[in-house]
Amino acid sequence: MRILTLLLVIAASLASLSSHAEDGYDLWLRYQTLPESYAKDVNRTIKNLVPGDINDPTRALAIEELQTGFSKMLGKPLPIKSNAGKASLMLLTSEALAQISNDVDTAKLTELGDEGYLLTQAKINNKPVTLIAANSEQGLLYGAFELLQQMQLQTSLKELNHSSSPKIQRRVLNHWDNLDGSVERGYAGSSIWDWWELPGVINPRYKDYARANAALGINGTVLNNVNSKAISLDHRYIEKAAALAEVFRPYGIKVYLSARFNAPMELDGFENADPQNPKVRQWWKDKAKEIYQIIPNFGGFLVKANSEGQPGPGDYGRSHAEGANMLAEALEPYGGIVMWRAFVYSEHDAEDRGKQAYNEFKPLDGKFKDNVLLQVKNGPIDFQPREPYHPLFGAMPNTPLMMEFQITKEYLGFATHIAYLAPLYQEVLAADTFAKGKGSTVAKVIDGSLDGHKLTGIAGVANIGHHRNWSGSIFNQANWYAFGRLAWDPYADSQTIGRDWLALTFTNEEQFTEPTLGMMMRSREAVVDYMTPLGLAHLMATGHHYGPGPWVSDLGRPEWNPAYYHKADKNGIGFDRTKTGSNALAQYSKEVAQSFADPKTMDERYLLWFHHLPWDFKLQSGKTLWQGLVEHYDHGVEEAKAMQQTWQSLKPYVDQERFTDTAQRLQIQVDEAQWWRDASLAYFSHVSGKAIPQGTTPPKHDLQYYIKLSFPYAPGN
Amino acid sequence: MRILTLLLVIAASLASLSSHAEDGYDLWLRYQTLPESYAKDVNRTIKNLVPGDINDPTRALAIEELQTGFSKMLGKPLPIKSNAGKASLMLLTSEALAQISNDVDTAKLTELGDEGYLLTQAKINNKPVTLIAANSEQGLLYGAFELLQQMQLQTSLKELNHSSSPKIQRRVLNHWDNLDGSVERGYAGSSIWDWWELPGVINPRYKDYARANAALGINGTVLNNVNSKAISLDHRYIEKAAALAEVFRPYGIKVYLSARFNAPMELDGFENADPQNPKVRQWWKDKAKEIYQIIPNFGGFLVKANSEGQPGPGDYGRSHAEGANMLAEALEPYGGIVMWRAFVYSEHDAEDRGKQAYNEFKPLDGKFKDNVLLQVKNGPIDFQPREPYHPLFGAMPNTPLMMEFQITKEYLGFATHIAYLAPLYQEVLAADTFAKGKGSTVAKVIDGSLDGHKLTGIAGVANIGHHRNWSGSIFNQANWYAFGRLAWDPYADSQTIGRDWLALTFTNEEQFTEPTLGMMMRSREAVVDYMTPLGLAHLMATGHHYGPGPWVSDLGRPEWNPAYYHKADKNGIGFDRTKTGSNALAQYSKEVAQSFADPKTMDERYLLWFHHLPWDFKLQSGKTLWQGLVEHYDHGVEEAKAMQQTWQSLKPYVDQERFTDTAQRLQIQVDEAQWWRDASLAYFSHVSGKAIPQGTTPPKHDLQYYIKLSFPYAPGN
Repeated sequence: MRILTLLLVIAASLASLSSHAEDGYDLWLRYQTLPESYAKDVNRTIKNLVPGDINDPTRALAIEELQTGFSKMLGKPLPIKSNAGKASLMLLTSEALAQISNDVDTAKLTELGDEGYLLTQAKINNKPVTLIAANSEQGLLYGAFELLQQMQLQTSLKELNHSSSPKIQRRVLNHWDNLDGSVERGYAGSSIWDWWELPGVINPRYKDYARANAALGINGTVLNNVNSKAISLDHRYIEKAAALAEVFRPYGIKVYLSARFNAPMELDGFENADPQNPKVRQWWKDKAKEIYQIIPNFGGFLVKANSEGQPGPGDYGRSHAEGANMLAEALEPYGGIVMWRAFVYSEHDAEDRGKQAYNEFKPLDGKFKDNVLLQVKNGPIDFQPREPYHPLFGAMPNTPLMMEFQITKEYLGFATHIAYLAPLYQEVLAADTFAKGKGSTVAKVIDGSLDGHKLTGIAGVANIGHHRNWSGSIFNQANWYAFGRLAWDPYADSQTIGRDWLALTFTNEEQFTEPTLGMMMRSREAVVDYMTPLGLAHLMATGHHYGPGPWVSDLGRPEWNPAYYHKADKNGIGFDRTKTGSNALAQYSKEVAQSFADPKTMDERYLLWFHHLPWDFKLQSGKTLWQGLVEHYDHGVEEAKAMQQTWQSLKPYVDQERFTDTAQRLQIQVDEAQWWRDASLAYFSHVSGKAIPQGTTPPKHDLQYYIKLSFPYAPGN
Repeated sequence: MRILTLLLVIAASLASLSSHAEDGYDLWLRYQTLPESYAKDVNRTIKNLVPGDINDPTRALAIEELQTGFSKMLGKPLPIKSNAGKASLMLLTSEALAQISNDVDTAKLTELGDEGYLLTQAKINNKPVTLIAANSEQGLLYGAFELLQQMQLQTSLKELNHSSSPKIQRRVLNHWDNLDGSVERGYAGSSIWDWWELPGVINPRYKDYARANAALGINGTVLNNVNSKAISLDHRYIEKAAALAEVFRPYGIKVYLSARFNAPMELDGFENADPQNPKVRQWWKDKAKEIYQIIPNFGGFLVKANSEGQPGPGDYGRSHAEGANMLAEALEPYGGIVMWRAFVYSEHDAEDRGKQAYNEFKPLDGKFKDNVLLQVKNGPIDFQPREPYHPLFGAMPNTPLMMEFQITKEYLGFATHIAYLAPLYQEVLAADTFAKGKGSTVAKVIDGSLDGHKLTGIAGVANIGHHRNWSGSIFNQANWYAFGRLAWDPYADSQTIGRDWLALTFTNEEQFTEPTLGMMMRSREAVVDYMTPLGLAHLMATGHHYGPGPWVSDLGRPEWNPAYYHKADKNGIGFDRTKTGSNALAQYSKEVAQSFADPKTMDERYLLWFHHLPWDFKLQSGKTLWQGLVEHYDHGVEEAKAMQQTWQSLKPYVDQERFTDTAQRLQIQVDEAQWWRDASLAYFSHVSGKAIPQGTTPPKHDLQYYIKLSFPYAPGN
């Protein structure tokens, strides 16, 4: 007995020795020791490395990463050779390749563009080699990361013949990080940028950030919050940004800054920031010059203007196009771009908030300079658990539209709920706008193929913070990963991405990956069900958006109130966006509008987004709307519980540290799903006068209890 | 050539593989592999482990730590035995020891008290064993940590005969951590407490925090800022604190909370928080009961009252004693204590700020309940680079006084300057109050030996944050370590402590430790010289206290202005605290007052603290005060440069990650020392009308340049 306890203590002790290895820091670059059989396979295929000219800093990083990967996965780095030998791993640009071999189809290589790569088995000097080929050093780096990923997935190298190039040009993270270190909507702790100690102190984490992103093909990062401070453009802060840019540059990651539109006023005492004021225009030109002098590969500006209190061209009666073009003009000589956000709604406009961006920007189609991207959120409101796609997609053929997804889970349970977001992203990307007939998907709008745009982009609002695991929870890492994969290829499949992530993050074993993938794939729908089922939206408590607040109806601006969005009363619930209501439906193409027009036949996942319906409205299931609503809420809670059970059954496959952390979060998720369901039903039952159906558990507390709960220190606010 | 570059890349690559091991996370628990010769010595002396009854959670942790240490230092854990054998390592309480051996002097053991331990070679069952003996499981844990420390220092185990017990009872960290995650005066990132996710998510770091502190003998932690929020005492937050308390409990660390004096009003709508109001008294009794129900070993309250805007008993015309006693009464049934801060000064009192605490508290001597400690900052102002000791020490014989040191470097360069604080702590502890004749040192006041107090305490304002290395810089860890060592033994020597810390943190090699120790030992004096030489104080810029601001004289309260402290004008400089001035000198004993009375003979390190002197006053060196001041500023800059040079010479002994991080910080320190010197001299030259002496470099910029600098995002504010 005693000895048994002792053994347990010793086991715990030894576990704790290695526990820090499983803190999630390594993300998808864990490079775990490979199983023997696969390791043999690799060792037969790759015996040495021919690095080529490593004076190029990007190639040097590719070699470094390969050697790190081989060392960790196979126990030692590869011997270095200067020329091709048997079983060499070679990194060759298409130019270099053409000089030494005609074994590879050069035309195929040309198609890969500036960033693509080819992984293949080839013969060089009559020797069988594994080849990473590309048209640029950057492509070689991406190829090296891909080879390492395929090795982690235990893909047979013998059969390797794999080329890839990104379909979208600007694949960018948006950090909503403030200069004081806080992160708006950040649930992974404060910012990883130490603005205070920059540029003097370069935290090694900056390099690991670049590695993690480059491994996914992310090639840009906006360092500061869209709700920006002018001082970010002050020389002292540009030097800080430059220090980060220098770390990121060889990884192919450009630095962008959010620009405050009235910076000339705040920094240099200008009387206005009017885009028609020549002095203002000159100020921006001078500022661009100043930036490019110390950040030669600076990406450009992201701008939130005339939205939620931010200054903008509208302050002077100028259009968004005039504002964006002034900045674009300043950046143009250096190849910089402007990412101008379409997320605008006005406190003075009584129009349906969901319609305002379209109304504002649709008339500006074609009026932006060539180096402007219009950055549009995935849905017309604001990163809800589910929204229909934004009606601007497909409606501005003469303007390149950039997608803005939210990776951080502002409205999906912060860092304590599991919600795998790839299905949400994919749902939007695959949505058909019918702009040029069937098949005009949102993906085709943003990758430029529908309207022939060369400048294309996609942005994800980062979920990255100082937390050791970067994203606040292990499963939140999957959303960063999935965003990167979909930014590279917006037609990729969320299930494949999820499976790859699981294998990279935990283990290849199917007994683990399959049930866990199932849990992930259903997780976002669970959140929809226990928060905002049947097309409801924006019912979260005010400000911090944590927990339910459907009862809130007394805020200064109507569209800040959850009650604005659900419009529930004793007669019914839902936002009428048909002809009898705001007619937001008319902002979509005819085909799409038709598909949502009839509540009896439409996809009920969007039902109350478009329709205000009586509580007794018959759903397709035959149940009443009220019954259906209750069932969705209940189902959400059941799904949360099911996830918890699944996870418990997976304990044998997961290290203790990550198992426990996830289990603790799932307990919170189960508790909060119940809270959401109970509070929401208590409220809707109250306003509708409908009783909780027989056989259904009534809410634990009365409505007042839920209304009184307050969370003054909810994060990210 | 190419191959050489290649080799460099590979070397860098391999270095990066292990680089994360040297991120500073492990503090003084690194347990590096021991050199072979010493390892042999250990292996001969200790061959197995007899753990005893590990059902005790504290002992289980001692065993776990020993096994972790042996595994890391020697490659494998110790085999477990149930009874003493040859070369066993045994953990025995005095009780258990008495039953099986009379080889050890029991009287000696009794003297060790509740927390002391004995490490010795002994014979048990006629077998030579290494013995950790103590009167409690807690003592055994401390003994285990000490054994592991001695092994890291490569002390010969054969000669081990070492007993120790703490001289101060409450050895406490004060976290100025806010509930939103920010840390007042924190320069190591935001709080390590994730109040939001507690109690649901237990970050493994909480355990490592407890290990690091227990290794030093720290046995208490105040979780929240002294500028506290009432909600910390709300049930939801008590549950969060309880989750931390549960992690810390087996390590012998008690949790304390800062209590907001008007909590009954803010939490429960009381009309007042008057200590004479029976309902208020009852509220605190109920609150104490509620806390102890879920935190059975709760330590008690820390209170900042009627100071800098905090509510307190003075709001109702009651004394600090009446306020403290009300809380003490509530905690008494459970063994809790009150730590009542003496850091008070009033906006309505025109008296020398440095005198006010004494005036307020001296008359209350003997009026506090037995479970109250009065927590007094080391000096009469506020954690300056140098202050004379606080005159309350020695002046309140009937009240146990608790020392409050600041570990975080609010006034000593944040996290970007090296300033080893043990010499500062030691200087205060060794100061002689002459309260009961010569030898009445501050250390004797606070360890209770001077006045026969049993309840004793020492607090350090923590420098801990989420930064991977905990303290913002590697060298800041030394201050946490030194505080812990001096809390255990206030007579310990700062040089010995520094040498131990270096060996635990870097390496035992003398070629490294001796020059580095020299650098550390001079570092605080360097800061004094380039910031506030010759007894000057509080010249830092307003609010954030970053950088020089001697010119500031327009703030709302006089004592917020640096000009209040230096009183420089064209005639002279310094604060007259003699009879002709505020006569703060009279608050000290006759002997001390005399020693500071004559500016011509006194210790010039305190010169301008006590005296206002003409610029041409002759210093003991024969130079004028103005010349001397310039020389001190110059010397400070030279010392910073010398530290930088020393560090550069130590590159061969330090891993790349920690070498670079420290080198980057030293560059900032050199730059900022120069800034401090230049700005201060520009200002003092301006007010005095004295020219910068011939042969001395004039300030780089004019005074206006320095005045205009602003730092809106300085941390910790």
